[in-house]
Amino acid sequence: MHSIVLELAKQRRSIRCYKNVSFNISKVLYAIKTAIQAPSGANQQPWMFIVIDDPDVKTKIREVCERGEKEFYARVRGELKEWLAKRKLTWKKPFLTEAPYLIVVFSEVGKPYSIESTWLSIGYLLLALEEKGLASLTYTPPNPKEVANVLRAPEKFVLQTIIPVGLPKEDKLKEPRKSLYETTFYNRWGNSLTNKRGEE
Amino acid sequence: MHSIVLELAKQRRSIRCYKNVSFNISKVLYAIKTAIQAPSGANQQPWMFIVIDDPDVKTKIREVCERGEKEFYARVRGELKEWLAKRKLTWKKPFLTEAPYLIVVFSEVGKPYSIESTWLSIGYLLLALEEKGLASLTYTPPNPKEVANVLRAPEKFVLQTIIPVGLPKEDKLKEPRKSLYETTFYNRWGNSLTNKRGEE
Repeated sequence: MHSIVLELAKQRRSIRCYKNVSFNISKVLYAIKTAIQAPSGANQQPWMFIVIDDPDVKTKIREVCERGEKEFYARVRGELKEWLAKRKLTWKKPFLTEAPYLIVVFSEVGKPYSIESTWLSIGYLLLALEEKGLASLTYTPPNPKEVANVLRAPEKFVLQTIIPVGLPKEDKLKEPRKSLYETTFYNRWGNSLTNKRGEE
Repeated sequence: MHSIVLELAKQRRSIRCYKNVSFNISKVLYAIKTAIQAPSGANQQPWMFIVIDDPDVKTKIREVCERGEKEFYARVRGELKEWLAKRKLTWKKPFLTEAPYLIVVFSEVGKPYSIESTWLSIGYLLLALEEKGLASLTYTPPNPKEVANVLRAPEKFVLQTIIPVGLPKEDKLKEPRKSLYETTFYNRWGNSLTNKRGEE
């Protein structure tokens, strides 16, 4: 039996540098078609997507995000600051204009498990993009409301993330993941999976 | 080119009735191995999983959940009440003891985008279960804290969902989904995808 979903999940890594090469929008729409099949609280499907390839709109989004990022980087402290510095991450977000497509994802306020359902659907979306050979990043600006205003989204829709989609320009390794044993217990908290029969 | 992820996503539906047939835990662990490959805020991997097949633990979880559900059903009103009644949903949650496995998913408080990242990983998990021919449901009790206490989870881990996993006993249709056109705009809010060249 195949293990395609695990293969896609292992293969996918977050990409911040994209080639200046476009492709048919159908691959992006394939991923959204997949996302909208996700389950949601009371099947309310509390998500909305905007696919963006207009350079002017991308430029405007980048400007607004980078304004928010400058403020964020001025105030960030502690562990997160170190983590960002180690990865040479700054307030600059060139992928917002360089990626041929952006997918902006919104969740609807007041729907049951709105944020949870929307992010579950984003999990579907990322695997579908990976299947089509497309790199992605779940980027959330520090000032999502301002970006939502640029896109004229109604008040009740909250911007959850902006996903650049394209062909990777960087040959990045995947950030390491904890093992199954570090993340999974058996029958109760703290009880190791080790020695459980039937394990792979 | 294959479209396996979309096929799995379309095929999957939430299942509330499970056959009394067990199977090797390796299929359940396959899905968690997939989930822990998901991206997360600052790669903090803010998720923890407990796989449960102990009947006593399942019984205890069911008792606590049903106590919470009775209170919830006593106070639910409006649209959600109608939605539940139409589907003949009640405070009874037999799948919590009937499904051969439960996967309890926690998110860690204080990690960046902890809830968002955890639910993204649940999206990966559901598709991996579907690939292995296993039905599932993302069930969230109204009293998650009480269930977390039964499992002796530390304070800083919040129970997000309990996922029963098994073979379906019901031959249920998938709840209908909105179309791509109802959920996706092009370049700005309200601008239809219709007539966009290159669409499938």
